[in-house]
Amino acid sequence: MWRARQPARARAAQLRTDQSRDAAFLMPHALEDLFHPKGVAIIGQVNRAHSEAQLRAQHDSRYGADNWSLVNPKGRAIGALTIYASVRDVPGPLDLAVITAPAEACPQLLLECGARGVRFAVVFSSGFSEIGPEGAALERTLAAAARRAGVRVLGPNTNNNLLERIPDPPGWRGGRIGVVTQSGHNGRPIVQGTALGIAFRRQVPCGNECDLEVSDFIDYFASDPETAVIAGYIEGFRDGAKLRRALAAAIAARKPVVMLKIGSTRGGARMAHSHTGHLAGADAVVDGLFAQHAVTRVRDLDELLDTAALFAKLPPGTGARVALYSISGGSGTLMAECAELAGVAVPRLTPETVAQLREYLPGYLTVDNPVDNGAVFITSNPPEVRQKVLDLIAGDPNVDLLVVGITGALSPMTDQLASDLEALAARGTAKPIAVTWNSPKIDEAGYEAIVRSGWPLFRNFRNCFAAIRHWEVYHARLQSWRVRRAPRARVPAPARRAIEGAAGVLSPLAGRLPPRRHERRAHCVSPSHSSSPRPISRTRPMRGSWCWTSRARARRSARPGSCCAARAARTRTRTSTACSCSAWPVPAWSCSSESRAIRSSVPRSRWASAASSRRCSATSPCARSRSIGATRARCWPHCAVRGSCAARAGARAWICARSNA
Amino acid sequence: MWRARQPARARAAQLRTDQSRDAAFLMPHALEDLFHPKGVAIIGQVNRAHSEAQLRAQHDSRYGADNWSLVNPKGRAIGALTIYASVRDVPGPLDLAVITAPAEACPQLLLECGARGVRFAVVFSSGFSEIGPEGAALERTLAAAARRAGVRVLGPNTNNNLLERIPDPPGWRGGRIGVVTQSGHNGRPIVQGTALGIAFRRQVPCGNECDLEVSDFIDYFASDPETAVIAGYIEGFRDGAKLRRALAAAIAARKPVVMLKIGSTRGGARMAHSHTGHLAGADAVVDGLFAQHAVTRVRDLDELLDTAALFAKLPPGTGARVALYSISGGSGTLMAECAELAGVAVPRLTPETVAQLREYLPGYLTVDNPVDNGAVFITSNPPEVRQKVLDLIAGDPNVDLLVVGITGALSPMTDQLASDLEALAARGTAKPIAVTWNSPKIDEAGYEAIVRSGWPLFRNFRNCFAAIRHWEVYHARLQSWRVRRAPRARVPAPARRAIEGAAGVLSPLAGRLPPRRHERRAHCVSPSHSSSPRPISRTRPMRGSWCWTSRARARRSARPGSCCAARAARTRTRTSTACSCSAWPVPAWSCSSESRAIRSSVPRSRWASAASSRRCSATSPCARSRSIGATRARCWPHCAVRGSCAARAGARAWICARSNA
Repeated sequence: MWRARQPARARAAQLRTDQSRDAAFLMPHALEDLFHPKGVAIIGQVNRAHSEAQLRAQHDSRYGADNWSLVNPKGRAIGALTIYASVRDVPGPLDLAVITAPAEACPQLLLECGARGVRFAVVFSSGFSEIGPEGAALERTLAAAARRAGVRVLGPNTNNNLLERIPDPPGWRGGRIGVVTQSGHNGRPIVQGTALGIAFRRQVPCGNECDLEVSDFIDYFASDPETAVIAGYIEGFRDGAKLRRALAAAIAARKPVVMLKIGSTRGGARMAHSHTGHLAGADAVVDGLFAQHAVTRVRDLDELLDTAALFAKLPPGTGARVALYSISGGSGTLMAECAELAGVAVPRLTPETVAQLREYLPGYLTVDNPVDNGAVFITSNPPEVRQKVLDLIAGDPNVDLLVVGITGALSPMTDQLASDLEALAARGTAKPIAVTWNSPKIDEAGYEAIVRSGWPLFRNFRNCFAAIRHWEVYHARLQSWRVRRAPRARVPAPARRAIEGAAGVLSPLAGRLPPRRHERRAHCVSPSHSSSPRPISRTRPMRGSWCWTSRARARRSARPGSCCAARAARTRTRTSTACSCSAWPVPAWSCSSESRAIRSSVPRSRWASAASSRRCSATSPCARSRSIGATRARCWPHCAVRGSCAARAGARAWICARSNA
Repeated sequence: MWRARQPARARAAQLRTDQSRDAAFLMPHALEDLFHPKGVAIIGQVNRAHSEAQLRAQHDSRYGADNWSLVNPKGRAIGALTIYASVRDVPGPLDLAVITAPAEACPQLLLECGARGVRFAVVFSSGFSEIGPEGAALERTLAAAARRAGVRVLGPNTNNNLLERIPDPPGWRGGRIGVVTQSGHNGRPIVQGTALGIAFRRQVPCGNECDLEVSDFIDYFASDPETAVIAGYIEGFRDGAKLRRALAAAIAARKPVVMLKIGSTRGGARMAHSHTGHLAGADAVVDGLFAQHAVTRVRDLDELLDTAALFAKLPPGTGARVALYSISGGSGTLMAECAELAGVAVPRLTPETVAQLREYLPGYLTVDNPVDNGAVFITSNPPEVRQKVLDLIAGDPNVDLLVVGITGALSPMTDQLASDLEALAARGTAKPIAVTWNSPKIDEAGYEAIVRSGWPLFRNFRNCFAAIRHWEVYHARLQSWRVRRAPRARVPAPARRAIEGAAGVLSPLAGRLPPRRHERRAHCVSPSHSSSPRPISRTRPMRGSWCWTSRARARRSARPGSCCAARAARTRTRTSTACSCSAWPVPAWSCSSESRAIRSSVPRSRWASAASSRRCSATSPCARSRSIGATRARCWPHCAVRGSCAARAGARAWICARSNA
């Protein structure tokens, strides 16, 4: 039943019930149990060619010794291992089901799991929405079954990497990174960053996200004391409101979020849609949302790894003024150039520091920053003198961070410098140190010493200084962050009719999937609309009411509730009734002050180019308006993260509608 | 004597004499002898603690067995090794002297070398211009001695890496890269690219460039049949005209030049000045010059290596339309995004190819480009089927290049894919293949197979697609390249006086070092002013007439010859007399059509930011002009590559002058 038809009092009571049920069902510690299940049922094909020992070796490492059971309808046994015919037969506690059965069997298996008291399922099986409409229908059935059974589902079309134990590298220091991805394979090069001395908490590949999604795991990592930084490869978000709550939780916990988000190009967005079914969304909106929520956006996997690693290793609150140190004037020159290109400050060292450095380094070398030690210094001085110079630079009050650039591998010079850095890591320094090893030759003792030292290690200057700049921007954004309240307003009837009739508008009103009941509630009165950060997620009990596909029903149940027109009227533009968001309550980041923030964070040319790439809504009254300017910027943020904008580039008219496709 | 005072006929006769003398003195083959000297004298300190065997081991590998002699004034012997007291005493042929003696002794040693018939000297010794004015004076003495002795000098303050033999990596394919740097240490990570299966011809660190300079070696590599690509780390150029001739030679030989050029930031330019004494020059001018001469400019060492490697490995004329192939939809998505961000075309495959691929890959995977094989395909098919799919994609007429993205190291899948790629490298394919290995984990059989295969190998998507885009731009620039003729014009007297009186203008007219006689000639009637490419360098006989420091003399000898004012008048701007280049003849790339090219290649914001970073010339009439616009763009290119612009940011006035400092 549609909440708008309820009396206000009944609605409020229902809401309280829903909220408490949500909170009870999935507090962050509840997802913790997904990672430490008491009892795992592995349901699906059993390779009977394997011996008992092989099967034990395969599963013990991932699920824990004697913490798992095999389930296959054929039953029987392998050695002393019983294969149960049904999950109902498995004895003992059972938290998690790992399902590799054929896709068609999965919904029924979930129901059985629910009956058995299993709380979580990881559905490995593929053959769902990634194969087309038929699979999508099966995925909807799966989600409905999960909801009926009360089982939270990761997947389908995922794997069990989330239970993988990622060993900390030797000499590791700093915090661990929690990785969440919408591509299992793209998560692998990130967690293989252990080769660079980086530690990871978990890797969670979300698969098709029929239930648990990226935001759930951002929220989980935000509440997890073992996670320092959250890194993600993301193609799209299912639920803008939940995402904002998760990001707010990460901010409240002071855990930086670094995201490689697809969708800044048409090619990427098209491929993302065919890969995970995500609509990449309006990229400027993503940029704006990220800017507001202090999310660092990166563009490649190595940048994701390097940035997250720096964030995990730098002590919180470290500044971003760098001192540059190298054994070569050329390297110092290049470092200065790259730092300035990235926007990183390279202040002069104080005269006191320079004078002290001159006691060790000859007068013809630059020492006021960058500091060039001239190479010979390394081979002609004992370690204590070499470390003293590093100490002097790190102690300068003008700098916050020392960057040591080792461009070429040139033992013994680079080996000795590396061993100094390792010694300093053990002893401690006044300021943190970041190191670059620019050579592809890494079979050197010096390289190994630097990995062991645990200092942040970069493979090129660009990523190094980009990460330092990201760090600075992250802290600036943290300062300006606040919870934003969504304004309350209604879309006038003409605008609503225009949206409903608009061709090509991906809107609940235009016949696509409408939002589900609990989603509507989440949008209307989500906890994030309150005025303080809420680190604890209150997710909805279950997603997946895909049965609401009737356009008539969707239209009947539509409740115009956007703030767009009202605000446009307030700002006295000519598009007061033309520029309307969908009937669904507007996400919190669309209020006027925030649209200014978004606008200011996105270059005008980006708006324009984004505008021209959107679809046109020929029948909309928007198309008649030619004056947009600031109003367009105010309208845009109304699109949810998954939303789309329909616009005629020529007339520069905009209709924003939230999509649930 | 200043050439302008000569009668035209005498000038032409003198020019012919100079040119033929230059040509005879240093044709490209003459520099070849520097790399294959018959007889090397190692002049300087001898480590007498070393045994004869140790010394032989040390020097034989670099200079050739029995091809070297030790020279030290103390004489004596170590074992059977004679140490000669003077280079005059060394018997046999002697092409090269490697001097490690104290700086003060070097000029005299060069004179002795000249008397002995030595043709080249590599001056290791430091203590010259890098230590300040005193050292700079000594360097001028050194250069004068070299000129008197007739010895061409590399250095001082360099090393003997140019004689290092860089072994080709196993499985190497494509061409070799010639590396020239103004920092010995920054060249090392480039030539250590052998770890990535890249082959190098030579590495030349130019040191302080008192004589031989970067352009000489660009010119040499252009004429060297063993070099396919020229890569450089550069902080500044000594001689714009010579540089243009060298680049023209590289174009004529169809050898791409890839440059990491410092100077796009103030920090980099400042540090470059203190490192090698180079003025980085007006960066937009460098960009314009590079665009005209098809030079690819990169920003970091890894990008320099990766771009040069792709250029060396791709067959000439290969197009830049890519097919993307991976074992993961997420990797394909990211590749599509990165390719489009870099401006690389990812066309759809033909329906025929798609239909054929569908015979091997299931319908739910994207195969029209990117091609996602879904991972299972690798483990469930024999090599011939897997290679057939790669062949099908490579054979598609819509694409020129296949990019295989391996993000995570995941044996056996990645191992099998890598072995397929190695097999295809041996067998041959319809189109070349580039591979990315995005994981930091490289201790895998698959990684080694890809290095062995010789396919271009990248460590991230950004560098991969940036290099492909550079490749496309390089070919487009080759098409538009032509030798440009410098316009003839004169600077009006008021403008000349303004320049002469301007404070802070680094100009020959403002009391700094004036150009030397042969430089003036080179500018006036250099071979590159002719209408056809001249692949053979005609360098001047010797640089270093630093005795022309008298401001009065410099002013007396000034010959206004710029085209700036005349052209400004033609274009009817208000700055017709205000915006003037120096009196020295204008480099060829400053003519009007080219300044348009430069202007269009540099975003307006770059001009503006560059403008605000320049020094102010308070006394110049330029300062009164407020209308610059297009005229500024026309004026800028008048600065030589080493030149500087003096400007008041507030008034936006410009004086361009060529510097010889």
